[in-house]
Amino acid sequence: MGFRATVLTLYPEMFPGHLGVSLAGRALERGDASLEPVNIRDYATGKHRNVDDTPAGGGAGMVLRSDVLARAIDAVSPEGDTRPRLLMSPRGRPLTQARVRALADGPGAMIVCGRFEGVDQRVIEARNLEEVSIGDYVLSGGEPAALILLDAVIRVLPGVMGNAESGSHESFETGLLEHPHYTRPQLFEDREIPAVLTSGNHKAVEEWREAESLKLTRARRPDLLAQRKITDIG
Amino acid sequence: MGFRATVLTLYPEMFPGHLGVSLAGRALERGDASLEPVNIRDYATGKHRNVDDTPAGGGAGMVLRSDVLARAIDAVSPEGDTRPRLLMSPRGRPLTQARVRALADGPGAMIVCGRFEGVDQRVIEARNLEEVSIGDYVLSGGEPAALILLDAVIRVLPGVMGNAESGSHESFETGLLEHPHYTRPQLFEDREIPAVLTSGNHKAVEEWREAESLKLTRARRPDLLAQRKITDIG
Repeated sequence: MGFRATVLTLYPEMFPGHLGVSLAGRALERGDASLEPVNIRDYATGKHRNVDDTPAGGGAGMVLRSDVLARAIDAVSPEGDTRPRLLMSPRGRPLTQARVRALADGPGAMIVCGRFEGVDQRVIEARNLEEVSIGDYVLSGGEPAALILLDAVIRVLPGVMGNAESGSHESFETGLLEHPHYTRPQLFEDREIPAVLTSGNHKAVEEWREAESLKLTRARRPDLLAQRKITDIG
Repeated sequence: MGFRATVLTLYPEMFPGHLGVSLAGRALERGDASLEPVNIRDYATGKHRNVDDTPAGGGAGMVLRSDVLARAIDAVSPEGDTRPRLLMSPRGRPLTQARVRALADGPGAMIVCGRFEGVDQRVIEARNLEEVSIGDYVLSGGEPAALILLDAVIRVLPGVMGNAESGSHESFETGLLEHPHYTRPQLFEDREIPAVLTSGNHKAVEEWREAESLKLTRARRPDLLAQRKITDIG
């Protein structure tokens, strides 16, 4: 049995979304991965089945209730479920390709999608939710972020990518941004493919690509180079 | 007329995806924003209508052809179109909330979604594509990334968020991660809402929130604090 994802959301109709198409769509169809959206509202009680309430201390927006969310979590991820419990949140630790690989090596994930202003802090602590951020921007809710995380994880599951080699030289797998790519036609407008790439000299091609990777990373993402040096030393 | 997005993709069926639901769905329905996916394959020529070819210099995967993509770009974004031309790519500059706000203040965006190993470098240069990354992980293609960028942009368009105030205190808008939230019930399992939040002392609440924001940012994202100091000085 493959990677098993259960997503707690107020918008189950957002799933599988783009994961229903192409690479991820075929993986879900084959059963390499499964994706079950569960509506948090199913675990609300009372006449109005409220899932949120105003923030303690005042302020704009609404906060997802701890009691409702805890019931939903306990129902879909009971004791003995070894899957990590994630909460998609801009406050979380930034998602990395290393975390993606680690998740793909595990049994799956239980993913909570926040909405409104946020989630009551007590359920995050009581249910040990790992807050994960996909980037330094704010989304309409956790659902788009969960879809991103699952897209990244599903594509590295065994058997999902057609060519096993494709993937290992990619951006972030080596700690560098990827070198430029070229393909036919040989001449595009007034631009030629760099001569080294059509020289047939494999060593020269490899060296050119490494140098270009390094140059691009230095220009755009010096932070990645700094991290890489720390890893090399450690 | 609102924010106008044209997306060049090999998978137009991935759109509007999750943008068809909830906040973004209503914005698209009202016309605050428009989203037109266009199939790159419509601009391929020849018997097989190929859009990609093997990488010059060898290696795994396929590269999107410059001539086909250039024709598609010229068709949907002719001279005089003032919208920025974005290419979703892990090699790009990381998306920030400031860039999201700037895009939302503009007329829209023409967004190219890469697939396969990458896009021929010459069309990136010849058509002045701005490479944008949503995070340090690898996706199945540019489509999920384009959906994320559009979700972030659409929610900050005028009139889209119900409460105009909601948004200004969020993570990244202040350069800090957001403080914890609490709501009813007063007691959840053995956990109380912090007393200060129910004290009615607005100044004390504000101070507590600021201190918590700072504490959380220091623990999880010292990089944001470092950036903030640079901005304060500059």
